[in-house]
Amino acid sequence: MEMTHPFDDAVALTSIEPGVYLGRTSAPYNNMVGPFGGVTAATLVRAVESHPDRHGDPLSITINFAGPIAEGEFQISTRATRTNRSNQHWYLEVSQNGEIATTATAVFGHRRDTWDDDEATPPDVPAPSELEQSGFPDFIAWARNYEMRFAAGALVEEEAADSTISLWVRDTPSRALDFAALTSMGDIFYPRVFQRRGKYVPAGTITLTIHFFATAEDVAAQADSYVLAHAHARRFHRGYFDQTAELWSSDEKLLATSHQLVYYKD
Amino acid sequence: MEMTHPFDDAVALTSIEPGVYLGRTSAPYNNMVGPFGGVTAATLVRAVESHPDRHGDPLSITINFAGPIAEGEFQISTRATRTNRSNQHWYLEVSQNGEIATTATAVFGHRRDTWDDDEATPPDVPAPSELEQSGFPDFIAWARNYEMRFAAGALVEEEAADSTISLWVRDTPSRALDFAALTSMGDIFYPRVFQRRGKYVPAGTITLTIHFFATAEDVAAQADSYVLAHAHARRFHRGYFDQTAELWSSDEKLLATSHQLVYYKD
Repeated sequence: MEMTHPFDDAVALTSIEPGVYLGRTSAPYNNMVGPFGGVTAATLVRAVESHPDRHGDPLSITINFAGPIAEGEFQISTRATRTNRSNQHWYLEVSQNGEIATTATAVFGHRRDTWDDDEATPPDVPAPSELEQSGFPDFIAWARNYEMRFAAGALVEEEAADSTISLWVRDTPSRALDFAALTSMGDIFYPRVFQRRGKYVPAGTITLTIHFFATAEDVAAQADSYVLAHAHARRFHRGYFDQTAELWSSDEKLLATSHQLVYYKD
Repeated sequence: MEMTHPFDDAVALTSIEPGVYLGRTSAPYNNMVGPFGGVTAATLVRAVESHPDRHGDPLSITINFAGPIAEGEFQISTRATRTNRSNQHWYLEVSQNGEIATTATAVFGHRRDTWDDDEATPPDVPAPSELEQSGFPDFIAWARNYEMRFAAGALVEEEAADSTISLWVRDTPSRALDFAALTSMGDIFYPRVFQRRGKYVPAGTITLTIHFFATAEDVAAQADSYVLAHAHARRFHRGYFDQTAELWSSDEKLLATSHQLVYYKD
């Protein structure tokens, strides 16, 4: 008997009418309250990927966490707002009992060969084999599905002078990377305010944008190797902070960036 | 007779039915093809600000440039997708002749006093008075509405090894900053691929996300002083590059960040 990977269970969808999908929260990917935002984002990418009219691969997605998602079933409605020759725009809503919990816009598209340049370089960190495996406390269920090796920003109850976090991460059990898994890794970081304050405070992502550089071939080439995930915040002001993240392949290519705005109070 | 500032003309809207606004492209804010994306983004912020049900000030907006906007009138439809106690989520569409040209999601909200920290610092650049005023070529109409003083990345036809751009910018004629104007400045940079390649190539923003740190008081305090605008790209790959930008107040506070994904070919 072949087992389904828990991540594939978590992002599984059933088409219930054209453009409308039924999903279900998955206990292994729960956060402290509700599902892990990364898996909600991944499920939205999967919804567009599942649509028969979809053109190309993800270029960007913005997910707005408008309200809580309760344990159980949810509906995802998808609508292609405009289809061009080289790209396609989508609007998506996640709802439960008729109330909108999440909204998203996504752009999918085809890529072409042209002038290319890797301007940024990855942070200089030790190889995964030189770093201890650690993680998040057990009550953060979703984190148990990731093998994490921190070069900076491991979760400790100590105030830090800066919010930088760098870790090697991959799914456990092992799973080949795809766009859904890459999307989820865009939200792999615990709230930067915990690191700065050295304690848990109320915090939650309001909006998350992911820009994809990786083509389907780039994602396939990564397979189940470690992804280098790196993030920092710029400002904590009047209850909101930002987080900009980079996700690097094991061969030092930038796969995606993610940008979020996070609510906090202290 | 008091003159209206050209920016206020450009973002002016007429309510035609509840939640639906009529706007008009404005020649002084044209780009090479169609309107300047920054003004389209600003007009969307203005649309939510105009809505009688709006709660609070902008926290974030993502604008997806799905298709061209032709000269003339356009409609903006706005819908509050969810209203919470402290924030409110919006979905917006710009359309012409029934076809969607632009989609957007926005989050507005109230802010609270809590722990605050300015972690990032502005780039180290000379004061505006120490820099020459320059700008973009005359055929880029919108740029003539901004006074620009470049510390790095002035538009020259020379290949550059990196994509970093830093400039002091303010409206000309002078105008006190507001959220719409700040939004527009989030797109003040010419495409980073021009700087790298030292030439004009086809390029256009696909999606633009702005995260706002500034409160209404912070914006008012800036008045008509210079904003320090700073941006760079990380990767140019298979026809898409990114641009992450910071907008700093004249007293070194981070007002907003912007993140875009841009189509290019060479």
